[in-house]
Amino acid sequence: MTDPTSSTVRAYLDNAGGARWHPAARQAFLQAVDDGWADPRRLHTEGRRAAALLDGAREALAAGLGARTEEIRFTPSHSASLHQATAQLSRARRRSGRDVVVGATERAALLHGASHATAALGGARRTVAVDRLGRVDAATFAAELRDGVALAALQHANGEVGTLQPLPEVHAAAREHGVPLLVDAGASVGHVPVPEAWDALAADPADWGAPSGTGVVAVRQRVRTVPTGPEDPEPWAPGGVNVPAAFAAAVGLQAVRQDLAVADARRRTLVDRIRAEVTRIPDVEVVGDPDRRLPHVVTFSFLYVDGEALTTELDREGFAVGSGSACTAGTLEPSHVLAAMGVLTHGNVRLALDRATTEQDVERFLAVLPGAVARVRRMLGVEDL
Amino acid sequence: MTDPTSSTVRAYLDNAGGARWHPAARQAFLQAVDDGWADPRRLHTEGRRAAALLDGAREALAAGLGARTEEIRFTPSHSASLHQATAQLSRARRRSGRDVVVGATERAALLHGASHATAALGGARRTVAVDRLGRVDAATFAAELRDGVALAALQHANGEVGTLQPLPEVHAAAREHGVPLLVDAGASVGHVPVPEAWDALAADPADWGAPSGTGVVAVRQRVRTVPTGPEDPEPWAPGGVNVPAAFAAAVGLQAVRQDLAVADARRRTLVDRIRAEVTRIPDVEVVGDPDRRLPHVVTFSFLYVDGEALTTELDREGFAVGSGSACTAGTLEPSHVLAAMGVLTHGNVRLALDRATTEQDVERFLAVLPGAVARVRRMLGVEDL
Repeated sequence: MTDPTSSTVRAYLDNAGGARWHPAARQAFLQAVDDGWADPRRLHTEGRRAAALLDGAREALAAGLGARTEEIRFTPSHSASLHQATAQLSRARRRSGRDVVVGATERAALLHGASHATAALGGARRTVAVDRLGRVDAATFAAELRDGVALAALQHANGEVGTLQPLPEVHAAAREHGVPLLVDAGASVGHVPVPEAWDALAADPADWGAPSGTGVVAVRQRVRTVPTGPEDPEPWAPGGVNVPAAFAAAVGLQAVRQDLAVADARRRTLVDRIRAEVTRIPDVEVVGDPDRRLPHVVTFSFLYVDGEALTTELDREGFAVGSGSACTAGTLEPSHVLAAMGVLTHGNVRLALDRATTEQDVERFLAVLPGAVARVRRMLGVEDL
Repeated sequence: MTDPTSSTVRAYLDNAGGARWHPAARQAFLQAVDDGWADPRRLHTEGRRAAALLDGAREALAAGLGARTEEIRFTPSHSASLHQATAQLSRARRRSGRDVVVGATERAALLHGASHATAALGGARRTVAVDRLGRVDAATFAAELRDGVALAALQHANGEVGTLQPLPEVHAAAREHGVPLLVDAGASVGHVPVPEAWDALAADPADWGAPSGTGVVAVRQRVRTVPTGPEDPEPWAPGGVNVPAAFAAAVGLQAVRQDLAVADARRRTLVDRIRAEVTRIPDVEVVGDPDRRLPHVVTFSFLYVDGEALTTELDREGFAVGSGSACTAGTLEPSHVLAAMGVLTHGNVRLALDRATTEQDVERFLAVLPGAVARVRRMLGVEDL
């Protein structure tokens, strides 16, 4: 048996957004690089071959997301998806309202997109607070949907702490007020069943092990959109869709959905084990909902620990982990998500387990973590507690 | 020797924008897929490895484009580059002017970007006409730079007809008026020496045989930019740079620059041969400057021919060619470039030769072209002339 503290084997535990590629997605990507490199809008054989791959990708993604084929849009990235969706959906409803209602723990790209969109409409972003587990209250959210609201946005799950939101209740309220609901499912698709309560859904292929280079948005046919950028034949992806990335996204989603329940249960057990063990370290706070959550994400924060130093220390031990504000693009600024939840905002580590993460990886991690924390605390002049 | 009219060997003669990949770019891309898949903003080993590839790409592209490393920006596509550059540069100069001056044969993405940017500033797009070869008159362009101009934009070469623009004269005039000049070199970089007369330069990796998925903009350090979209840590590429694509772009540019003079001369000879031979077909117009032009691009239009039908006919014979408005993303609308030049706007074919295009490919093409044109004319009920 391998020494559990050996750092010769590396474990990548930062599989959110820029996740390690799924083998099926990788293979599809390499195939599409050979068959789908041409511009799919061209009329020749090479162009038509790329167009066929793109059509197939669209169809498979629609099936995977519970949408119609013609409802699928491709964008250059998940951030671009959230920018485009907030702008286009709110612009189409400018006669009914100018405000956009969002949850406090939405992704930074959504919050900034909502601010930008409402500024253009002469409205404002209304932010609904979350509780200590990171969840909005459905009734409070619903109350904000009255009067002058162009769009509501609520994530399916938070990628930083894993907490799931009460989408069905919020969607029911939104329908009642005639306000479309944009759901950021960027952290959840591929890990738990796709939600059904949405008018527009943004999914992030880079989160389910497909290459970066494309985002996916599904917009229900009844929901209107109005492009706000420069005129373009592809307003969601000026310059055209990245065909190999789109094809790999579709194949990757099919692959992860095939054993979703098994992968979900297996990772949930590993996360339960981590949640229980980590609390043995002094001055730690494990955050997010312990039950109604993503199966593969767990975040904890240590008092008297610098997040950057701990990330580096764990990296040296062979573990790639996330820290800081995971949804704010890896900058180590205090996380707006943790701040909104009223929990520790510094010294935090976010693990996002892969389907390939083993029990051994987790045991090795749990074996080195206390020592790493103690070393960082000593570096900061804090005595072992 | 192969039958020159055999269609078993295919020749891809549509290498502009979505060009066939250069082998060096392909190899670099596949390497970067393995080494640079992680988010380069992360602090762990995998993230730092991606960041190192990105730094290397930035440095190599700067060297290739005659810019400083810190002047390089990555975007999701060449269209996104032109949208971002027109918006950000004009916005930064809104106190000095609200109009944007452009050439009439600029790429559609630039024209639409300029319209969108000036609408936001309360100004207008001023379009400078071109002559029958597709070239602006430098003095006429300069005269437009007086009073209230935020930005000027002129392409290095037109990707549809190959004509080069008088950049040094126009840049000198722009400097005199204190107006920054944005140069769209998307059709020229990799084919002729990179121009030096610019304040911002947009280059298109997909045009020199690198994967789509990234655009490159160089902005001189003295030139101010102001992001206009939602707040983002990467305003030129919300969601982050596509590292494998950026790395492949850099390696691809290095590769094509190594034998630029040879590839230039070889393709120029082939294009000269095409220009001479095509004129033997009745009712044809070969467009663009015969001398001061891109080495690899040639466009001709036939009377009594439908462009889509001819493209399809040539495709059947084994040749992938462009048609319609090449700069308007492959839609077969009448080309605004050809219209601005006052030449035939229908029934046109654009060839963009690859470095791998052989003399045999060209001879085969010239052998099948007259028959293809005649067949399309017969389909349209036009007698052989």
